[in-house]
Amino acid sequence: MSRNTPTYDALCAHWLRIYRLNHLLSMAGVDRNTLMPPAGNEARAGAMAELEGLVHGLHTEPELGERLARAEQEPLDEVARANLREMRRHWRDANALTRALVERKALAGARCESAWRTQRPANDWHGFLGNFREVVAVAREEAHQLAEQTGLAPYDALMDRFEPGMRCDEVDRLFGDLKTWLPELIQTVVTRQAQRPAVVPVGPFSNAAQRALGKELMSVLDFDFNAGRLDESTHPFCGGVPEDVRITTRYHGDKALQCVMGVIHETGHARYEQNLPRQWLGQPVAAARSMGLHESQSLSFEMQLARSPAFGDSLSGLLQKHYGEQEAFAPENIGPLLRQVKPDLIRVDADELTYPLHVGLRYEIERLLIEGSIEAEDIPALWDERMRDGLGQDTRGDFRNGCLQDVHWSEGLFGYFPCYTFGAMYAAQWFSAIRRQHPDLDTLIAQGNLAVLFDWLRQNIWSQGSRWETAELCVRASGEQLNPAHFRTYLEARYRS
Amino acid sequence: MSRNTPTYDALCAHWLRIYRLNHLLSMAGVDRNTLMPPAGNEARAGAMAELEGLVHGLHTEPELGERLARAEQEPLDEVARANLREMRRHWRDANALTRALVERKALAGARCESAWRTQRPANDWHGFLGNFREVVAVAREEAHQLAEQTGLAPYDALMDRFEPGMRCDEVDRLFGDLKTWLPELIQTVVTRQAQRPAVVPVGPFSNAAQRALGKELMSVLDFDFNAGRLDESTHPFCGGVPEDVRITTRYHGDKALQCVMGVIHETGHARYEQNLPRQWLGQPVAAARSMGLHESQSLSFEMQLARSPAFGDSLSGLLQKHYGEQEAFAPENIGPLLRQVKPDLIRVDADELTYPLHVGLRYEIERLLIEGSIEAEDIPALWDERMRDGLGQDTRGDFRNGCLQDVHWSEGLFGYFPCYTFGAMYAAQWFSAIRRQHPDLDTLIAQGNLAVLFDWLRQNIWSQGSRWETAELCVRASGEQLNPAHFRTYLEARYRS
Repeated sequence: MSRNTPTYDALCAHWLRIYRLNHLLSMAGVDRNTLMPPAGNEARAGAMAELEGLVHGLHTEPELGERLARAEQEPLDEVARANLREMRRHWRDANALTRALVERKALAGARCESAWRTQRPANDWHGFLGNFREVVAVAREEAHQLAEQTGLAPYDALMDRFEPGMRCDEVDRLFGDLKTWLPELIQTVVTRQAQRPAVVPVGPFSNAAQRALGKELMSVLDFDFNAGRLDESTHPFCGGVPEDVRITTRYHGDKALQCVMGVIHETGHARYEQNLPRQWLGQPVAAARSMGLHESQSLSFEMQLARSPAFGDSLSGLLQKHYGEQEAFAPENIGPLLRQVKPDLIRVDADELTYPLHVGLRYEIERLLIEGSIEAEDIPALWDERMRDGLGQDTRGDFRNGCLQDVHWSEGLFGYFPCYTFGAMYAAQWFSAIRRQHPDLDTLIAQGNLAVLFDWLRQNIWSQGSRWETAELCVRASGEQLNPAHFRTYLEARYRS
Repeated sequence: MSRNTPTYDALCAHWLRIYRLNHLLSMAGVDRNTLMPPAGNEARAGAMAELEGLVHGLHTEPELGERLARAEQEPLDEVARANLREMRRHWRDANALTRALVERKALAGARCESAWRTQRPANDWHGFLGNFREVVAVAREEAHQLAEQTGLAPYDALMDRFEPGMRCDEVDRLFGDLKTWLPELIQTVVTRQAQRPAVVPVGPFSNAAQRALGKELMSVLDFDFNAGRLDESTHPFCGGVPEDVRITTRYHGDKALQCVMGVIHETGHARYEQNLPRQWLGQPVAAARSMGLHESQSLSFEMQLARSPAFGDSLSGLLQKHYGEQEAFAPENIGPLLRQVKPDLIRVDADELTYPLHVGLRYEIERLLIEGSIEAEDIPALWDERMRDGLGQDTRGDFRNGCLQDVHWSEGLFGYFPCYTFGAMYAAQWFSAIRRQHPDLDTLIAQGNLAVLFDWLRQNIWSQGSRWETAELCVRASGEQLNPAHFRTYLEARYRS
């Protein structure tokens, strides 16, 4: 950080300590989800809760509020002001919560998530409920304490940590818009695709081939292997720290695309992290802006780029190189294969047309749960009802592929789900802006030239960190606020034609 | 812990916090040595130094000394007294050091070790020296501060952290004894073996086969995979925490035995950790007693058990199962193969007869270095001189296979090396005691029955944690103090015949 006032510099040193301790929490989390054997979980949960409590203690040191107020009166440059704004936000959120609740949350989440790993395959909703009730109780208390401090509604207060500034009114507006046109579009596309189904890949595909393909794609997408890795986990994620980004995938011998599309998705997250502003690293202003923006990067890579017609030949070539030639991987089948639309049970396997319906369902349910309108035991019936309405799926008794499918709730992550759809909308908006500047974007992509795309993302998103609040960043990057019309235009163009 | 006095219970809660934070440091260290990409090192070093400083802060809280003194006056059970004794030792060592020195040490060690990884293969002694001078300066200051507090001589003060109670006088006596008979024994054995050399294994041996063999041996040796893993690293180690023990190995396609013997060695360390007293876990009294005792477990597994004639048929069978049949793995060649003696350059590849000479050389040099009798730049010449005298090896200009070969010094680990030889001596003493109780031990081992051995180790060593000071533990387990005569008797019997 550039030299500013002593008060501000002391605050920077304080937040650098927090950043460093969070590094260890992040890495312990990565290990837990990739390597840790089952019997290690309890000690790990205790250790992480201890450090989380300690980090919470650093955020709530008594003199901090006064120091923030003093620094806010001092002459500081623009980046420092933005940094101070982020410090205050973290300070406010942390001070809203008692340390007891922070530690209780860490323990409840770790216990429930750990048990969920076996309860999900066992379809054991009732076992899950035993731990989950405590997670819900903690989350409601958390929402209550945050709401008290921020003046927001309880669910808004939870969501604000993941997508600062976003409120339920806006979410309702965005999902309300989707509901007016998306179901009809899905119906039309499904009907049309039924007449000319894609040729399905014939496996098996070895883990080694899938891994080599994934790593080659990461290279094509400029992932920096000197500062990150690809590993394996049950549920793919992007974790670690900007200096050492860990992404994961999973291998299924009969699925040609699951691993590779997952790797592309996580590489989008990874490049955001790897290209955050180095000169401010360690400070809140250097952090990724929000989960919605993060998802806009993974979806820019996976949906906007990798599943686009322009990228088809490149992908076809790589699939054939690593898996051998077969009809499914021929250039003319890549489009039908990658842009197949099929209402189904599982969110993470959903196509981009049905995906927002999965998200909307979770948003509705978790909001009711946090607001106390329903209890944990009401979830399966509500889940089933919404899945029939929205996606025509019957989930009665099938918890494994129903309300037990996601890890989020087990960890107490409420208010996160909507970010997936914000991300999809932002991504469409970014590409619309890039195409305005570079009408030849698809030609360049088809030629294997991704520099224009990456330069735009670096300049407008990655290098900005948290320098601007989301709404301002969005306007600076794309010329307007988040506008769901871009998402619609994009989906109509890609799927209707 | 059982309920004792409030003061004592508060101390236990305090040390449990330290235990939990050390969990994260330990796991961050494991990741650094197994997965971490090079560009992640600086941030990792900063994060670990931060938490090390914080743990140091917990050890040096102002009221702690007074609370320890108060608890020491209270009526406590025997285990609590032992726990208090260990707390005081940790408290004393931590309070001897300034926090600035603790953080400076962590950073200097991380920097030097990280650079060493490429400097060693590049044979770059002068590059290494650039970082190493700071490591030596820090270690001398550390020895000085510890000596001030403990009243010990500087090198003794460093060694005491790894082998509490051990002093240079005793080390000199132990190594002095070795020098009177070991060189002659080596000479005799080398000459005799030259007349009937072992049949050498013919590779390559795939990583997959080596890994499968290693994991089967870990199972034979009762490693608990539910609470630990086998991974890969440049230098094999045993790390992690008792609840989640991580051991590592490395694979060389042309070496049939390096991986497997390393895995057996680390499994010995691992079983000690996995069988520490669960009821006290989190408290200092539950920790492994010393590095020498730790090494006595790895060497009990590797040397006393796995390289013994009694285990030969089992090992022969497993080698042939995983590598295929060849003359080298026939039962009659296993002994010559596993008990080959050859003076050479590299400590970690040394046989058990020449190994103590490698250790003795390092002990001599590092003691002179800490005492200030030599400087870092004097090491190569001294190393070369001692290697010629002791092992007949010329190391001039060959830093890679000379004084740059070990990781210890780069990390500032001085006072550790002698523990390897204490461990070899303890291991011989344990087996002598076990054989007195179970004269049929070798018959049982040959039958694949290892329960008697493991039960003895569990009862006498593992489950004792740090309940007794080393000398008392040694007497309780074997009926006498550390007695190098057992080591001599054992080596004479195994190699002279």
